[in-house]
Amino acid sequence: MSEASQTLDGWFCLHDLRRINWTEWKKLSGEERQSIVKEFIHMLEDWQQVEDNGGGSHAVYTIVGQKADLIFMILRPTMNDLNDIENAFNKTRLADYTIPSYSYVSVVELGNYMPPKDGGDPMENPELRSRIYPVLPKWNHICFYPMDKKREGDDNWYSLPIKERRELMRAHGMTGRKYAGKVKQIITGSAGLDDWEWSVTLFAHEALQFKKIIYEMRFDEVSARYGKFGPFYVGNLLEPEKAESFFHI
Amino acid sequence: MSEASQTLDGWFCLHDLRRINWTEWKKLSGEERQSIVKEFIHMLEDWQQVEDNGGGSHAVYTIVGQKADLIFMILRPTMNDLNDIENAFNKTRLADYTIPSYSYVSVVELGNYMPPKDGGDPMENPELRSRIYPVLPKWNHICFYPMDKKREGDDNWYSLPIKERRELMRAHGMTGRKYAGKVKQIITGSAGLDDWEWSVTLFAHEALQFKKIIYEMRFDEVSARYGKFGPFYVGNLLEPEKAESFFHI
Amino acid sequence: MSEASQTLDGWFCLHDLRRINWTEWKKLSGEERQSIVKEFIHMLEDWQQVEDNGGGSHAVYTIVGQKADLIFMILRPTMNDLNDIENAFNKTRLADYTIPSYSYVSVVELGNYMPPKDGGDPMENPELRSRIYPVLPKWNHICFYPMDKKREGDDNWYSLPIKERRELMRAHGMTGRKYAGKVKQIITGSAGLDDWEWSVTLFAHEALQFKKIIYEMRFDEVSARYGKFGPFYVGNLLEPEKAESFFHI
Amino acid sequence: MSEASQTLDGWFCLHDLRRINWTEWKKLSGEERQSIVKEFIHMLEDWQQVEDNGGGSHAVYTIVGQKADLIFMILRPTMNDLNDIENAFNKTRLADYTIPSYSYVSVVELGNYMPPKDGGDPMENPELRSRIYPVLPKWNHICFYPMDKKREGDDNWYSLPIKERRELMRAHGMTGRKYAGKVKQIITGSAGLDDWEWSVTLFAHEALQFKKIIYEMRFDEVSARYGKFGPFYVGNLLEPEKAESFFHI
Amino acid sequence: MSEASQTLDGWFCLHDLRRINWTEWKKLSGEERQSIVKEFIHMLEDWQQVEDNGGGSHAVYTIVGQKADLIFMILRPTMNDLNDIENAFNKTRLADYTIPSYSYVSVVELGNYMPPKDGGDPMENPELRSRIYPVLPKWNHICFYPMDKKREGDDNWYSLPIKERRELMRAHGMTGRKYAGKVKQIITGSAGLDDWEWSVTLFAHEALQFKKIIYEMRFDEVSARYGKFGPFYVGNLLEPEKAESFFHI
Repeated sequence: MSEASQTLDGWFCLHDLRRINWTEWKKLSGEERQSIVKEFIHMLEDWQQVEDNGGGSHAVYTIVGQKADLIFMILRPTMNDLNDIENAFNKTRLADYTIPSYSYVSVVELGNYMPPKDGGDPMENPELRSRIYPVLPKWNHICFYPMDKKREGDDNWYSLPIKERRELMRAHGMTGRKYAGKVKQIITGSAGLDDWEWSVTLFAHEALQFKKIIYEMRFDEVSARYGKFGPFYVGNLLEPEKAESFFHI
Repeated sequence: MSEASQTLDGWFCLHDLRRINWTEWKKLSGEERQSIVKEFIHMLEDWQQVEDNGGGSHAVYTIVGQKADLIFMILRPTMNDLNDIENAFNKTRLADYTIPSYSYVSVVELGNYMPPKDGGDPMENPELRSRIYPVLPKWNHICFYPMDKKREGDDNWYSLPIKERRELMRAHGMTGRKYAGKVKQIITGSAGLDDWEWSVTLFAHEALQFKKIIYEMRFDEVSARYGKFGPFYVGNLLEPEKAESFFHI
Repeated sequence: MSEASQTLDGWFCLHDLRRINWTEWKKLSGEERQSIVKEFIHMLEDWQQVEDNGGGSHAVYTIVGQKADLIFMILRPTMNDLNDIENAFNKTRLADYTIPSYSYVSVVELGNYMPPKDGGDPMENPELRSRIYPVLPKWNHICFYPMDKKREGDDNWYSLPIKERRELMRAHGMTGRKYAGKVKQIITGSAGLDDWEWSVTLFAHEALQFKKIIYEMRFDEVSARYGKFGPFYVGNLLEPEKAESFFHI
Repeated sequence: MSEASQTLDGWFCLHDLRRINWTEWKKLSGEERQSIVKEFIHMLEDWQQVEDNGGGSHAVYTIVGQKADLIFMILRPTMNDLNDIENAFNKTRLADYTIPSYSYVSVVELGNYMPPKDGGDPMENPELRSRIYPVLPKWNHICFYPMDKKREGDDNWYSLPIKERRELMRAHGMTGRKYAGKVKQIITGSAGLDDWEWSVTLFAHEALQFKKIIYEMRFDEVSARYGKFGPFYVGNLLEPEKAESFFHI
Repeated sequence: MSEASQTLDGWFCLHDLRRINWTEWKKLSGEERQSIVKEFIHMLEDWQQVEDNGGGSHAVYTIVGQKADLIFMILRPTMNDLNDIENAFNKTRLADYTIPSYSYVSVVELGNYMPPKDGGDPMENPELRSRIYPVLPKWNHICFYPMDKKREGDDNWYSLPIKERRELMRAHGMTGRKYAGKVKQIITGSAGLDDWEWSVTLFAHEALQFKKIIYEMRFDEVSARYGKFGPFYVGNLLEPEKAESFFHI
């Protein structure tokens, strides 16, 4: 039996992806649509206030391709908070013109495969706190996907000694570091919370960087042998002031 | 051919998960909605009476994310009882505003990989009886998932000698014991009853404990090599007195 | 190349599973519903007459959980008969209130992995005939699932010498024999007829016996190494005289 | 790198499978239904004329079970012809009462794993021509399924030397030859055209022969080790003169 | 850890596939349909102008079989451009009569497994530029599919040394070269952008060439051992002047 690694866990996280039912949306009058969009923007403003007060964070992007039109990524202190936000959105009028297409439940996580720290309670460390209670960047692009570590035949991550796992993760981290300033990554853990073991959310100024980092990392042994990837969603920042034109017919 | 292990089996179990059709629900008048919720709460009270009389048990939680909005976990003495409850719910008015999203049929099970007992009929043992005819806890959070033991190449649980299976299960149990008081676990068997071999339902005061126990257990050899996991559903307790605000528009 | 085993084949078989569209069903008046149920019961009586005349057999059960509400298992001499029955049902009014959820096409089969018989045409043997042209029991519970024999890496059933396959099947049969009187099993072959190679339909007085036999058999080498299982459906006998209350709102 | 085998390719092929929306169909008046069926039969007559003129061929069968109600198998000289036929059908009134359930695009193919011929252009050989531009038989039953050759671990068809592939195909052909007169088989290739590498369409006087040939062939090494099979569809001949009663309510 | 290969990346790419809702389309008056088709053709003309100005490219084909009726392949400089085009189409009236059936997000890519060049900035090389910012050919037929390189047991592309990968790709390229003038191929990379690692789009004068090249290539070791293929879509050129007859009822 291998030694389990420890994690630091922060805010709970809901990724909520929706398609827009354009056909029904078009049937509304321009006035009705405006009023609905106003209600939606108001909800975004409420979210922003929570973020400004340090009570959570969120990101809102449009998704390219048919898998979804919108993604909301929401960070909050409790599972009940996530449920409240989800239900509140479902009760807005805009929700009636969206079709649920994917969601993901997880919690922001820092794995500690890093060399042991100087002692001290990590939860008191401001730098670590800002990583598990992050303010999500408002960069141009988002890339979100869930993933597992494989347990297939000889390629069984969970049977590796912790020392070997640590070494593989360290090398993986080195690849990631090359993209500092270009790609910002939020890892959330979801063992016991959703269908994969982790979700990864990347933010970038240029969408091409998603392809570059993911492709380069696939040659890292930890991905090549042990990575198992779910669906990928990629999209563009939807600033509240752009929402009106996005929904305009 | 390996020796099959014996099990003790108690109440039959139905997990019934539903999404809410919010769009249609909103079209009702407030009065109609109230009347429907009242009928629903009345059904919950009937279930509670059965539980109070020792004739079964149940749990009602809301689910986070799009996979479902509600989960009913129902324990009853017979398969016909489960069918009756399911049909009775389908005949309520609330059912018309829900969309079936997943269900699972099983029976509460105690595996006896434990060392042989002092003899005596286990069905007369009050401690064992309370485990196969349990009163489900009303803790804050639920986590439900079905699972199999793998039969793939060299990783074939059912080909292991019973002694080795017992040892692996014992070690697994040790991991579980660390979470006593934090996580309560109900195992149900479903070979021949549904698409996976077991379902696991966990209850916790803090949702983070689900991630901690599942993640730590994944390093146990029994999970690392032999575990195969279905979808995970996680949620929050819906007390009858909260149902009104949950359904309120 | 391994020697193929021979089979004796009897009646063709259709498993037809349906969900009920309760929401639409409730919109009908009580009178309309009664009239539709009467038409349905009339169809069941016609099926019963065919069975009484030795021209086929059938079983009608309700299914527990969301995968289906009803299962019809129909045995008839030809593939055209099955098609006629299916189309006739689709033309009844009740069909408009059901949603197709699964079906399976196969033919009742006796494998002859048994030691060679005393010669004589097996089709003239009354005991064998009653097994390939069976009258389905009206026991309390049904369990239905399709299955394959694996062809994966070293676990390739179809590459085993017939002698070894026969030995594995014999041991499997010994496990089955322990359940005589408790579980009745109908095997149908479906290579070339549907998506799996066989379907298994079990009947039992007590539903728990399904779990016991399936779980115990999973340790038989033939299942542990070579069995691959599809979805499981489990349910309760729907006698014609109970149909009215089942459909009553 | 193994030597690719050569193929002779004939007509392009579309398998188009549809379910019937019986509920909507019943809402029409008897007159409307008759008029729609007449239009449908007229289309079949046009197809027959093409076949009589040697410009293609077709088969129309009803399918048993819920996976489909109708299958059209259409052979034509070009991919554009198939598209035209598909669109023409979609523009008929009957199409509005059908639900697309599966389709397959391929081209009639003769593999030449056979020993080299006497030279001469095979496309001038009348016997070969009749096999790649076949008139589809109007036998009682149809069986259609797509398939791949495996590329998994040690079971990799495409890595075998051509000599070994030829030997395995030859043995497979010997099994097929036992069914001459009972089963007629059309192989179409679909690498680059649809999701599997081949489709197989069998015709038989007796439906049981499908099970016999598929089951026996599964023990051939080429199937046991290298065959990977998609969904199976089985059905009964729908002669134009039976269409009226089939659609009659 | 293997060395990652470098790529040259050009325009972003959206494949957008749609089924037509013929039933609803037929309910419109001929006049309404004409007006909607006119709006659609106008959109195609706008796309053509962008292509003529070197700001992107596109291809519009009809798809054979039920998986889709139309495919739009769109090349543009940014991810935001793709999103704009997608949303603009969704806001047209024609979109209301289409059903999203598949989409794919990627970026035109040149792998440089080729021997090192004479130095010089490849982005200044006109021949390379024309390959990553291509004008899509208007040939008769299209074939589109996504694909991965396998990471399964001993068949793990990402664990191969770059020298070996280069040799395998070179041999693969030799097979491709045989089809020069018959098949034109556009490779797009999609690691981090969509669910597979690459998409391949082929154009041909004769549809049979798709089958020939794909089948022959499957014997190349790089495909035989390492290729993993998604769904295949095949179709016929839809020139703007044919759109009217395509949509005509």
